[in-house]
Amino acid sequence: MTPTQEPPGPGTTHKRSLTIAQLAELAGVSTATVSKVVNGRSEVAPETRALVEGLIREHGYRRQRRRESPAALVELVFHALEGDYPIEIIKGVEQVAREHDLAVVLSELQHRHVPGRSWIEGVLGRRPTGVIAVFSGLTDDQHDQLATRGIPLVLLDPSGDPGHQVPSVGAGNWNGGLSATRYLVQLGHRRIGIITGPDYALSSRARLDGYRAALDMAGVPIDPDLICRGDFLIEGGLAQAHRLLRLPDPPTAIFACNDGQAMGVYRAAYELGLRIPDDLSVIGFDDLPPTRWAIPPLTTIRQPLTEMASAATTMLVRLAQGEPVAQSRIELGTELVVRSSTAALAR
Amino acid sequence: MTPTQEPPGPGTTHKRSLTIAQLAELAGVSTATVSKVVNGRSEVAPETRALVEGLIREHGYRRQRRRESPAALVELVFHALEGDYPIEIIKGVEQVAREHDLAVVLSELQHRHVPGRSWIEGVLGRRPTGVIAVFSGLTDDQHDQLATRGIPLVLLDPSGDPGHQVPSVGAGNWNGGLSATRYLVQLGHRRIGIITGPDYALSSRARLDGYRAALDMAGVPIDPDLICRGDFLIEGGLAQAHRLLRLPDPPTAIFACNDGQAMGVYRAAYELGLRIPDDLSVIGFDDLPPTRWAIPPLTTIRQPLTEMASAATTMLVRLAQGEPVAQSRIELGTELVVRSSTAALAR
Repeated sequence: MTPTQEPPGPGTTHKRSLTIAQLAELAGVSTATVSKVVNGRSEVAPETRALVEGLIREHGYRRQRRRESPAALVELVFHALEGDYPIEIIKGVEQVAREHDLAVVLSELQHRHVPGRSWIEGVLGRRPTGVIAVFSGLTDDQHDQLATRGIPLVLLDPSGDPGHQVPSVGAGNWNGGLSATRYLVQLGHRRIGIITGPDYALSSRARLDGYRAALDMAGVPIDPDLICRGDFLIEGGLAQAHRLLRLPDPPTAIFACNDGQAMGVYRAAYELGLRIPDDLSVIGFDDLPPTRWAIPPLTTIRQPLTEMASAATTMLVRLAQGEPVAQSRIELGTELVVRSSTAALAR
Repeated sequence: MTPTQEPPGPGTTHKRSLTIAQLAELAGVSTATVSKVVNGRSEVAPETRALVEGLIREHGYRRQRRRESPAALVELVFHALEGDYPIEIIKGVEQVAREHDLAVVLSELQHRHVPGRSWIEGVLGRRPTGVIAVFSGLTDDQHDQLATRGIPLVLLDPSGDPGHQVPSVGAGNWNGGLSATRYLVQLGHRRIGIITGPDYALSSRARLDGYRAALDMAGVPIDPDLICRGDFLIEGGLAQAHRLLRLPDPPTAIFACNDGQAMGVYRAAYELGLRIPDDLSVIGFDDLPPTRWAIPPLTTIRQPLTEMASAATTMLVRLAQGEPVAQSRIELGTELVVRSSTAALAR
């Protein structure tokens, strides 16, 4: 029983890897049991599963029939299906998947940012061509489980730090934050509030840092009272806008770090009898389709979600074909879209 | 070679059905070719495919390995992925699919209302547990192709007449149209405009008939000038609202047959300097999440899209398990949701 030399598969650095029979012998279990673990089936005792997964992690797993091709499926997993953000992404994935005759399997994590066991078992059982995780991440074990089966993973708009190993696609969030704030400064605003996303979202931190940089470059002092932590939800935007607009020295402009929160700012202004943009300028982030129908139409930073999703899917297809990807992190540019929710500061 | 007697499968009325070998002999082609047709593979000449499909239609097809279970997939096909309507439906399908360990394969028809050949080939190749088609239909051939493979189909919010054979889930559209219009009449409105959906959509025709019935019951004469044909899109709502509001005797209230069109009416009012609800009452249909954030919040008819999608998926699972479904057409109730876009007619 000598494991043969083999080139490392995508995402693994294993020099040797074992067949199901070899893994079964090492673990002291049947080949059927190893096969169940490999294929993500559930009828295996947790200890046995842990033992076999440990051996796979240590030695690697080599598919016996090399020609066995993966299913023509792309797994697309969202932390939540809320608002227009998922639809923009689904469209981009569908488009590229269709070109490659791949069908898209959609899952929702019900607001969790890491999938559970039933999800990964389902994925391993379906043997997809690859996995795209949106605004979420995988556990180290789940990474290993995909890598040892040669199933590539691409993170799309990852909420946390994707690390160096995992390819990811995002947007130029820092630049977007800079552009939004700089535009407000150019309009004469000095008291500029910001409603960020949650702290764990790197995209939100980058937008906040862009805001700080723009103020700093303009010589405007940063007032911590004007920085509010939001949650990327309309309700959060509403609550934080009320807090900002009730300050003794309230802001004359608010940068909401996503379009949903900007809609919350609109509502707060409506409730307080403030007119947009006469009494308050508002700028969002995303450029989701409904924002152009807001009254007044929302000035925002366009994040090309559909293009980002297409890029992630193209990257995934390349990885699945064993081609190298030039960069493991792609950032698509953001862009200021001026509509009618921003105006020069009245003096 | 005597075809054996067999109970009819779901959706078929065939008393006898043939195996692949029997079909191959009848057609004078190889079993491999018949197998390709059965499994939706593309490398078959069109005439041969038509010949084999014709034989399957005529005689039925019997899977040789009866135990071969379908893939744990539900196919969900949309005519278009636009706005919040698809997300509400996806959530309902995901929920029930998850309970049954089924994954959801999502396809978009890019605004066509009937899927093309690559879609049906993909579906047959994946051998799913069932298919849910949203606001679209299948060709007779596609129906046959699914039926002969024992793949059940459920139509969700079908745009056209689903016929008696195909199970479907919809909403109480006529009642919704009645409730919306009756509420406006109760508020004192007599000049009530309506912006319908496209003519081919039965849901839109039913809402229009509900509108007519409510006016008739209130003794309000129906003015054809006040009936506009829309397209269920925001842009269409905007254009039709402009037409209505520029009539010599314009309406004091508009019933938009979906929420998107209601947003178009909001925009038209804004452009014409009319205040909602002071100068114009507006009522929508759907109750999509953004409508409660519209300014002012939209009065609308709630159509329980997520529950409809769950019901369709439950129906599909039953059909796949060979259980009878009590009714082949389910209609879930609609409900008036009063918010702030409607007011009593000022006298």
